[in-house]
Amino acid sequence: MTTAPVACFDQVTTLVEPRIKKLLDRLDPHNRLVAAYHLGYCDADGAPATAVGKGLRPALALLSARAAGEPPGPGVPAAVAVELAHNFSLLHDDVMDHDGVRRHRPTAWAVFGPAAAILAGDALLSLAHESLAEADQPGAVRAVARLGADVRRLVAGQAADLDFERRDDVGLDECLAMSADKTGALLSCACALGALLCGAPPALTAGLSRFGSHLGVAFQLVDDLLGIWGDPGRTGKPILSDLRARKKSVPIVHALTSGTAAGDAFRMLYAPIRQLRESDLELAARLLDEAGSRDWTGKEADRQLGRALDELSGLDLPAAVRSELVDLSYFVTGRDH
Amino acid sequence: MTTAPVACFDQVTTLVEPRIKKLLDRLDPHNRLVAAYHLGYCDADGAPATAVGKGLRPALALLSARAAGEPPGPGVPAAVAVELAHNFSLLHDDVMDHDGVRRHRPTAWAVFGPAAAILAGDALLSLAHESLAEADQPGAVRAVARLGADVRRLVAGQAADLDFERRDDVGLDECLAMSADKTGALLSCACALGALLCGAPPALTAGLSRFGSHLGVAFQLVDDLLGIWGDPGRTGKPILSDLRARKKSVPIVHALTSGTAAGDAFRMLYAPIRQLRESDLELAARLLDEAGSRDWTGKEADRQLGRALDELSGLDLPAAVRSELVDLSYFVTGRDH
Repeated sequence: MTTAPVACFDQVTTLVEPRIKKLLDRLDPHNRLVAAYHLGYCDADGAPATAVGKGLRPALALLSARAAGEPPGPGVPAAVAVELAHNFSLLHDDVMDHDGVRRHRPTAWAVFGPAAAILAGDALLSLAHESLAEADQPGAVRAVARLGADVRRLVAGQAADLDFERRDDVGLDECLAMSADKTGALLSCACALGALLCGAPPALTAGLSRFGSHLGVAFQLVDDLLGIWGDPGRTGKPILSDLRARKKSVPIVHALTSGTAAGDAFRMLYAPIRQLRESDLELAARLLDEAGSRDWTGKEADRQLGRALDELSGLDLPAAVRSELVDLSYFVTGRDH
Repeated sequence: MTTAPVACFDQVTTLVEPRIKKLLDRLDPHNRLVAAYHLGYCDADGAPATAVGKGLRPALALLSARAAGEPPGPGVPAAVAVELAHNFSLLHDDVMDHDGVRRHRPTAWAVFGPAAAILAGDALLSLAHESLAEADQPGAVRAVARLGADVRRLVAGQAADLDFERRDDVGLDECLAMSADKTGALLSCACALGALLCGAPPALTAGLSRFGSHLGVAFQLVDDLLGIWGDPGRTGKPILSDLRARKKSVPIVHALTSGTAAGDAFRMLYAPIRQLRESDLELAARLLDEAGSRDWTGKEADRQLGRALDELSGLDLPAAVRSELVDLSYFVTGRDH
C-alpha cells in the first residue's frame, strides 16, 4: 500500500471545493440544502460540517489539465463538472438502490425523501454543464459533449446493474462491461476532460481517456471486493453489504459462473426465493473465497491497473504529472507500488 | 379559440422528431425503450407507435431561430434540446408525483418502474446538452449555460411544488413564482435558445426570453384550470385530478387565500386530515368557482398572455415570424384571438 499523494488532493480542497460551494449558491434553498448535505458541507439542519471523501475525480481532472502543459487552474471547471456529475449519480443511485448509508451518514433520500434527492441530483447535473460552458476555454463545447456522452454511459451501467438484480443468467463479460460503464466512463471522463477543455491534441486526450477507463475498472473491482470483505469502519457501509443487497458485482458473478462446487453452493444460497440470514451472509462470503472469486477479482484489478499504467507510459507527459498519476493509481486501488 | 398554427408544428414533425429519434439510437437498449415509450414512439414492448403531443417547446425554438433571421434549420439543435429537457422533467415529475397516466397512456414509471424512469430522464438531459454542444454554431456554449440555468429553475419549481403539498400557508405570490419556475423557465428557454444558438443580438434574445416567460405562466394557468375543470378525453388525465392529488395550483391557492366564505369552506374540505371522496371533489370544484378562483385564474392567464404579446410588439421581427408567434400564443393558451 502507498500513502496518499497529498499534493493533488490538496489542490482539490483549495481550488475545486470553493468553486463548487460558490456554484451551490445558485441553487434554490431546497436543493441547496440537499446538495450541500449530500456533499458533506452541512448537516441535515444546515449547520456547517467538514466534507470527507477523497475527491478522486476532480484530482484526475486537474492532473489532466497539467498533462496538457497547463497549470491546474484551467482544469478547475472540468474538475468541478466531474465531481458534480459524480454526485448527481450518487444521489440518484442511492434512491434506486435503497441504500441508507453513505460516507458514514444517512443518505440524502433517507433524510429528505426520494423526490428531494432526485431533484438535487438533477440540479447538480445542470451545474456540471454550466461549469464547462462558462469556462471560456477552447475546448468548452467538446467538453460538454464528452460529459454528456459519459453520463449516458454511467446511466447505461446503472440500468444494466439494476437489470442484473432481476436476472440469474448474468455473464462475467457483461458484468465487466457494466463496471466499465458505471465507473470507468466517469473516471475516463475525468482523465480526459481537463486536457480536452484546454484544447490538448486529440492523441493526448484519447490516451488519458484509455488510462482512465482501465483505472476506473480497477477501482470498481477493488470497490466490489470492499463491498463484501471491506471493514465497515473504513468503507462507511454495513458489513457484507453487497451480499445483503443481493448485488451482482464481479466477484459474485465470477462465483456464479465458476462451475466450482463452492460456486454452485453459493448459487443455491443466493437464490432469490431464500431469505438471507446473517449467518448465510458469512457463509456466502466464505464460498466466494473458496470459489476463487476473491482471488480472481484481485488479479483482474491488478491487470486493469497494469493496462492503465501501460497507457500512461505511452504518453508524452511532464515528469511530475506522470509520477502523480502513477502514485494516484496505486493509492486509489489500494495495490502495492 | 383559434385553430392550430399548422406550419410550425409541421416543422417539428419534419425537422425535429427525426433528429430526436436519431439521438435516441445513442442510448443503451434499456434507456432507449423507456425513453421511446415515454415519447410515444413505441409501445411498452417496443412496437412502433405514433407520437401524440403538440411539440410546443420545439416549435418555439424553431421560431426563435427564425426570429434571428435564420431558416428553421439552425434552430433544430435548440428545438431538440428543449424537447428532450422537457421530457426529462416529465419522466422525473411523474415518479415524484406518483402520476399514473400521461397523454392517455400509463406513465413510464408505472410500466417500467421508478428507477428506469429516473435513468431515462437522466439520459435525455444528457442528450439535450449534447445536441447543443454538437451544433457547431456561434452561440453553442451560451446555449448550454442557458439550458443548464433554466433546468435548475424548473427543478426549483418542482421542489417548491412538492413543498407546497406539505404546507397549509402557501401564498398566491409564491405560487405564481413556482409556476414561473416550473413552466415559465423552460418556455422562456425555448423562445430564447434558437436565437441564442444562432448568435442573435442580446436585446433580441432577452426580449424573446421575456415573451416566453409570460407565455409560460399563461400556459401553466390554463393548465391549472384544465387540471380541475378539463375534459379527461382531451387532457388525457382523470377528471378533477389536481384536486384528487391535493395539488396547490394557482386556482386552489387563490381560493385558500381568498377570504371568501366559499374559500373557507374549501379549506375545511381540503384539510389533509380528511379523506376526499368523489362527491367531495365535485363540491370542491364548485367552491373554487364560487370563491372566484376559476375566474381570477382565467383573467390572470389573459393578463400574462397580454404581457407576452406586448413584449413581442417591442421586438423587430420578420412579419411571418411575428404572426406565427402570435397565433401560437393564442392557440396554446386556448384564449380568444
